[in-house]
Amino acid sequence: MPKVYLNGEYLPADEAKISVLDRGFIFGDGVYEVIPVYGGRLFRGPHHLQRLNNGLKAIRIDSPLSDAQWLTILEELVRRNGGGDQSLYLQVTRGIAPRDHRFPEPITPTIFAMSNPLAEVDLSKQQGISAVTLEDNRWLRCNIKSISLLPNILLKQQAYDAEGGEALLVRDGFVTEGAASNIIIVKNGTLITPPQSSHLLPGITRDLVIELCRTHNVPHELRPITKEELAEADEVWVTSSTKEIVPVINIDDRAVADGRIGDEWRKMTRLYRAYKQAFREGNVE
Amino acid sequence: MPKVYLNGEYLPADEAKISVLDRGFIFGDGVYEVIPVYGGRLFRGPHHLQRLNNGLKAIRIDSPLSDAQWLTILEELVRRNGGGDQSLYLQVTRGIAPRDHRFPEPITPTIFAMSNPLAEVDLSKQQGISAVTLEDNRWLRCNIKSISLLPNILLKQQAYDAEGGEALLVRDGFVTEGAASNIIIVKNGTLITPPQSSHLLPGITRDLVIELCRTHNVPHELRPITKEELAEADEVWVTSSTKEIVPVINIDDRAVADGRIGDEWRKMTRLYRAYKQAFREGNVE
Repeated sequence: MPKVYLNGEYLPADEAKISVLDRGFIFGDGVYEVIPVYGGRLFRGPHHLQRLNNGLKAIRIDSPLSDAQWLTILEELVRRNGGGDQSLYLQVTRGIAPRDHRFPEPITPTIFAMSNPLAEVDLSKQQGISAVTLEDNRWLRCNIKSISLLPNILLKQQAYDAEGGEALLVRDGFVTEGAASNIIIVKNGTLITPPQSSHLLPGITRDLVIELCRTHNVPHELRPITKEELAEADEVWVTSSTKEIVPVINIDDRAVADGRIGDEWRKMTRLYRAYKQAFREGNVE
Repeated sequence: MPKVYLNGEYLPADEAKISVLDRGFIFGDGVYEVIPVYGGRLFRGPHHLQRLNNGLKAIRIDSPLSDAQWLTILEELVRRNGGGDQSLYLQVTRGIAPRDHRFPEPITPTIFAMSNPLAEVDLSKQQGISAVTLEDNRWLRCNIKSISLLPNILLKQQAYDAEGGEALLVRDGFVTEGAASNIIIVKNGTLITPPQSSHLLPGITRDLVIELCRTHNVPHELRPITKEELAEADEVWVTSSTKEIVPVINIDDRAVADGRIGDEWRKMTRLYRAYKQAFREGNVE
């Protein structure tokens, strides 16, 4: 039974209980992060904590801890769960109060974290995934990594029902992101991903891919992607912190280009893995 | 300390705890109802249970109980909390599972209910409320009474910050509903409220007002309301199960008509109260 962290205590997951009046349970009133851990250390930790703080600010919860304190707590949880490579989940809710939409008088936020072993993806076995396009019916502040995720759940499940691995969301004719990932397409050797906006999450992996493009002079553009461009792309990828960069080889029952994993994906994945390796060796933060 | 119901047990609210892995806490993956109780009996109980079942179906949770079983549980909770007039809250989540967007293999839904005393609104002291209009930035399935309520929370709080009692939400130029209520306007003696759609909740109180219009030949129309019509209305009301029909006398710092509570509100409130009285006397279901 892995240990979790709950409001100052480390305890077995099945002993961790919260009040039914926690606003996380009653209202989905909180934010979260999923942080990959390699060799016991948080990968892109400062970026995740920055996004956490941005999210807390956006929903007007005073961050209960400093970045140093977050790190102390989270690294201790990772250590107690055996170190190595883990997927670390952190959730902060507004706390416990009688049910009322109105923000309560300042209360203590609920802090919950858990972690599970994370297996390195074997790139040689990467088969690519299928995806379906769905209308993006979510709210208009998707840049907030909120735990009010029912819309995402239902969209993602629709993709699973269609035997797809992800739902690619389309708003007003433009592809915003996946139900639990960001999207990147490749056309004529150029990577294209939508710019940050309130319609999509500022993805940490997406940002790292852009950073790698800059460092290694890979042609790339931050601009909206139409549904037509998606259909005509040479390659389509979805990115997330724990699944990294995943090639999409089939969309809506139609092959992406020739239906095979593309060369640009191989190139970027090599750069990404090299960056990870440098992180493991302590050569990048 | 009022008692609550949680998964088969009646217990004091501060002893009711749920797992951190409850999908209600992790994903906002559930639906809820707020049901007024008069004289120990659920007002419009069958309507609330029907909406609950519709919501469960929409998010694909098999209803764990029959209507008769729901009633038994809820009435027992009301009884244990002293009977009389209460505000009853019921929430059903998908249950406990390792965190994954995908629906888990069938698990037992979490059932939580609580109730609190409900004071009869003193109509002679009704002052009306102020409201503000805000862009409706919520998802496109607002007919589901989901616990993923962060968007509503933030909108409602924006209204409170502006010293308003409700946020009236505007999507594409049309007023959909309040952040926690439905909207009805009156123009030249005709009640107007938007028709049911995926942009608004099928409100039980709203439906009862329409029913009363039909019974008592009050002119009414179910059609979209433009933001301009809202600004030019003779009366504006918001409805909810526990607050009933509340007159809005000021919107965006401008008086509604002459800024006083209108005659149509008085008329409809009398009909509503008479219906409630008939319910108390057992003359209507």
